[in-house]
Amino acid sequence: MSNLLETGKFPEDLKRYKEKDYEELSKELRERLINVVAKTGGHLASNLGVVELTIALYSVLDPYKDRIVWDVGHQTYVHKILTGRNDRMETIRSKDGLSGFPKMSESSADSFNTGHSSTSVSAALGMCRARDIKGEDYRVCAVIGDGALTGGMAYEALNDAGQSKTNFTVILNDNGMSISKNVGGMSKYLGNIRSKKTYLRAKRGVKKFLVSIPGIGKPMERFFHKIKEAVKALFVDTEIFENLGFEYFGPVDGHDVEGMKTIFQRAFSYNGPVLVHVVTKKGSGYNPAEENPQSFHGTTPFDPESGEKNIDNSISFSEAFGKKLSKMAEEDKNIVAVTAAMPSGTGLIGFEKKHPDRFFDVGIAEQHAMTMSAGMSACGLKPFFAVYSTFLQRAYDQILHDCSIQNLPVVLAVDRAGVCGPDGETHQGIYDLSFLNNLPGVTVAAPSCIEELEMMMDMSLKVFDKDSGMLNGPFAIRYPAKDKYSFDTSYLNNAPVEYGKGAMVNFANFVSYDVAIIAIGSMVETAMQTASELKKEGIRALVFNARFLAPLDEVGILNVCKLCNAAISLEDGVKCGGMGSSITELLTRENIWIPFSVLGLPDETIPHGKIEEIHKMYGLDVLSVCNEAKKLIRRKQDFS
Amino acid sequence: MSNLLETGKFPEDLKRYKEKDYEELSKELRERLINVVAKTGGHLASNLGVVELTIALYSVLDPYKDRIVWDVGHQTYVHKILTGRNDRMETIRSKDGLSGFPKMSESSADSFNTGHSSTSVSAALGMCRARDIKGEDYRVCAVIGDGALTGGMAYEALNDAGQSKTNFTVILNDNGMSISKNVGGMSKYLGNIRSKKTYLRAKRGVKKFLVSIPGIGKPMERFFHKIKEAVKALFVDTEIFENLGFEYFGPVDGHDVEGMKTIFQRAFSYNGPVLVHVVTKKGSGYNPAEENPQSFHGTTPFDPESGEKNIDNSISFSEAFGKKLSKMAEEDKNIVAVTAAMPSGTGLIGFEKKHPDRFFDVGIAEQHAMTMSAGMSACGLKPFFAVYSTFLQRAYDQILHDCSIQNLPVVLAVDRAGVCGPDGETHQGIYDLSFLNNLPGVTVAAPSCIEELEMMMDMSLKVFDKDSGMLNGPFAIRYPAKDKYSFDTSYLNNAPVEYGKGAMVNFANFVSYDVAIIAIGSMVETAMQTASELKKEGIRALVFNARFLAPLDEVGILNVCKLCNAAISLEDGVKCGGMGSSITELLTRENIWIPFSVLGLPDETIPHGKIEEIHKMYGLDVLSVCNEAKKLIRRKQDFS
Repeated sequence: MSNLLETGKFPEDLKRYKEKDYEELSKELRERLINVVAKTGGHLASNLGVVELTIALYSVLDPYKDRIVWDVGHQTYVHKILTGRNDRMETIRSKDGLSGFPKMSESSADSFNTGHSSTSVSAALGMCRARDIKGEDYRVCAVIGDGALTGGMAYEALNDAGQSKTNFTVILNDNGMSISKNVGGMSKYLGNIRSKKTYLRAKRGVKKFLVSIPGIGKPMERFFHKIKEAVKALFVDTEIFENLGFEYFGPVDGHDVEGMKTIFQRAFSYNGPVLVHVVTKKGSGYNPAEENPQSFHGTTPFDPESGEKNIDNSISFSEAFGKKLSKMAEEDKNIVAVTAAMPSGTGLIGFEKKHPDRFFDVGIAEQHAMTMSAGMSACGLKPFFAVYSTFLQRAYDQILHDCSIQNLPVVLAVDRAGVCGPDGETHQGIYDLSFLNNLPGVTVAAPSCIEELEMMMDMSLKVFDKDSGMLNGPFAIRYPAKDKYSFDTSYLNNAPVEYGKGAMVNFANFVSYDVAIIAIGSMVETAMQTASELKKEGIRALVFNARFLAPLDEVGILNVCKLCNAAISLEDGVKCGGMGSSITELLTRENIWIPFSVLGLPDETIPHGKIEEIHKMYGLDVLSVCNEAKKLIRRKQDFS
Repeated sequence: MSNLLETGKFPEDLKRYKEKDYEELSKELRERLINVVAKTGGHLASNLGVVELTIALYSVLDPYKDRIVWDVGHQTYVHKILTGRNDRMETIRSKDGLSGFPKMSESSADSFNTGHSSTSVSAALGMCRARDIKGEDYRVCAVIGDGALTGGMAYEALNDAGQSKTNFTVILNDNGMSISKNVGGMSKYLGNIRSKKTYLRAKRGVKKFLVSIPGIGKPMERFFHKIKEAVKALFVDTEIFENLGFEYFGPVDGHDVEGMKTIFQRAFSYNGPVLVHVVTKKGSGYNPAEENPQSFHGTTPFDPESGEKNIDNSISFSEAFGKKLSKMAEEDKNIVAVTAAMPSGTGLIGFEKKHPDRFFDVGIAEQHAMTMSAGMSACGLKPFFAVYSTFLQRAYDQILHDCSIQNLPVVLAVDRAGVCGPDGETHQGIYDLSFLNNLPGVTVAAPSCIEELEMMMDMSLKVFDKDSGMLNGPFAIRYPAKDKYSFDTSYLNNAPVEYGKGAMVNFANFVSYDVAIIAIGSMVETAMQTASELKKEGIRALVFNARFLAPLDEVGILNVCKLCNAAISLEDGVKCGGMGSSITELLTRENIWIPFSVLGLPDETIPHGKIEEIHKMYGLDVLSVCNEAKKLIRRKQDFS
């Protein structure tokens, strides 16, 4: 079936293809993308949108010699197929398989690793400057979506690049979307350009036409030159980019290979920074994705014919969060929800429908989201900022500078915390525990199950009361991507969530235990399973659900450690600076010496794969924790 | 002398003043500012620049009811004088005195704490939204400099605000400067607006004139409406803000109170988001500061008549860094220096002069600086990004996502690390050790003296060699603001810097020591002084200079701990997740039990004051460390 894809040599052949070859290849690429992602899951709509863009770009550039930086990078499946990885596409996002993002270690055609939004212009500008200083000769290009353009660092880079005089092409892949509908003034502005649908040829024509108008009277004459410049504004308002110092080319149809080739050739031979505005359609060529690009942005496996997915009826932490918040907001009119371009992923679609005036999607702009929430808090609202753990990294300074040291409470709903699974190294949510742990006034809580999440959300409202006795700053609740867990949560009936307190999960009135497993968040389930396994071998393991990292339940933990001959701490985050680290300091400070192990993730780059696979790699699965427990028990016996 | 300032009631009286009163008050305020800062040191040029702006704003708004967010906040001295703090100005920036920045805890006229750049639009937009949701009635205003506009989060906020329909005024205080000369496309663009010097009245006149031109021919007619809009672009190119959704007012002369009042009144009665472009002169009204605004941005005490300062000939870490780098760059043509608007503060002025083509000031844009450096590194350059510790917080995600997990080496010259002194809580450089400690592939080094800094810089070049055996990622060297230290560094002759190794500073071949003091960076001096004091009491203290936090010299530290009966770790950073935390984990893992104390800063907001005063408050001075050592020694004796 796939004739060109099977027989062609890429990217070389692209240079000699004719229009109909491009059409055929585009068709084959789309089929390939749909078939692969239907099986593996992954990013579909964005890749369907850049089929022709990638073809046109690699007809002009050499991805092995020139440097192309794909912003965010989830739209590089076409790039991977055309740079020698077609036969490995079925392995994408699985352990030891291809990454779902560009990866320098995977191919020399991958110039820079991406994953988080809005980095491409900075990285590519650095490459331009390196080329210029080293006197080398290659072309550099950043491909950035209009969604990523809402991220402030893209603007920082455009601002710097615009005055740089370096030869640099930024391709704006404008589809009017980030993951969901794009927001903000820039988006509306680009929409205005698009809606004029004059595209490049029309614009040039009109300029010529106006310049040649006869009979322009005397008073106009001295404004004539300026009029010429201003005329551009009549049809396509390109001043934002031109004022920053970029030459603007476009808009051009992003599904017309020949049209793009022409413009790209001009852009890459231009002296100085150029922005090429390409208009694409997300999900292009596949009806289910065109109609519902948000659903096919990142998708689970689906039926390629119908686009139908297996609906999983289990409720995720995200959904539970959204439902609960929506309900809380009915009673408390000061509750508002803030998201940085993730209304769906964070479970806030229902909230948005029910409370549209109290829902704020600020674009891919975590820094702004955090500080805007702080401003809201300073004036009496109760903001809940729902954000993936990995993206909260972008707001580190704002958490500290604008909330923490100002004692301004904001609830942080930290979603996708812990090992992230198939997205891999750029998206690991494993740093939040550590980077929040040492900030003044920050509460860090982590539920082990959905009931606990709901209890913690109820409690978080009290942080807005300065006299609650709670820390007066951000109240972070972190929860994992996983939506299934199976352990007996009935102990919750007798152990409601108390601020800064943990709870024994399986206390059975023994005088002493062989080992304590102090776990937090999603690892409580692993701890419980470990205890069951150990019980089979006659080993008594006491599971303590820490619930809070900050403030840490020092009294509770010391009691547990006194009751046990050894202890393990278990968290789905980096070890250094996290819960285990805090417990170690506590035990040292209190002169309590028992064999103690900190289980968590090392300061290594953590790859992609299923969560369970990655946990196993790093000793966070039930068997590994059992073995660690037994090792500690033996050590204790050696010492006694 | 200060007639109005002494007799007036502010801000109330501003509303009834006439033009000559404003002139008189401006003169008095300038005298007051100069006299205060000449004594206390602090920010001068930016405050001189906003005298009239502040007067005009508080003639229109009520700072106690309305919410004014001053971006960065170092320009709020006038604000403080006019909101009841004139008599305490002499205490500014000193312990228990006024803060050099807005502080909600200091006055209800301070709406939001600032310190870092580019947060004001976000915070103020949050306030607008709170007001709208709560149905309250006050005006909200962000005052942001053109320098702060190079920070991406300001753009994120403008992008969100532009489509918000809320009543919101952003005042752009445009002086063509950040701390030094402003950079980037936006700056050039604003310069173009300013240079036209038409200001508001002229613009309005020309619009009217053009609209009424007779004899505009038939072919022009259908473009007529659009021409009207485009005409704005002829004189003042305001599209950037208007395209983002703001109504643009200005430019207006920022030293003309009446002119500003008129525009502010219009702006605050406008429905929707407005940007008022105010043009000011940094240092206005004081010749030495007008002529050298960079020198009078943040200044030490000076002679108010002449503007002359006491020149201190001791060399700071920053200067030593700059000199050394400049020299290294002569030999290695791939070395480049990157700064985020801090060429002077980071000691890079000499480098810029000597190697202008390899010097990059990217504006107040730490995120971009970091990722741009990563791009440079990916293409073979050796970037040194010099940045204050507190501002590096802005690039946390970029260090991790764009350097650390990509194995891209960049040297981070982390200046002003540790307690920052008079700038206080927003500027403390005490988090870097912790937030860098757990990132993959990051080296964290801290010199105790300038010779060590130079050795570490030489070593850092090897990080660009993938086969050096060093961690392949960011190489951070953190050093303090202080420029004087007095301890015997002659041990360096026998203890050159080795990668990942510490060194005993005062080893004297005793069989055992009473206590080890494991210190890093600037705290080595304190450790040495402590050892001297303890020696007077017959206590043997071994000082170990850790030099590296990551990789930590585990072998060296274990050897030291085995040689000593007790140990203290000493760092100028937060305890949680820092060096003491790493050593505690090491000792627990290795089952070594000696009395051990971690000395550093708690997770509290650390106030302003002299560095020594703050160190003393938190037990990091010689006397406190001596006492801690004696406590541990007693504890060891109790246990033996």
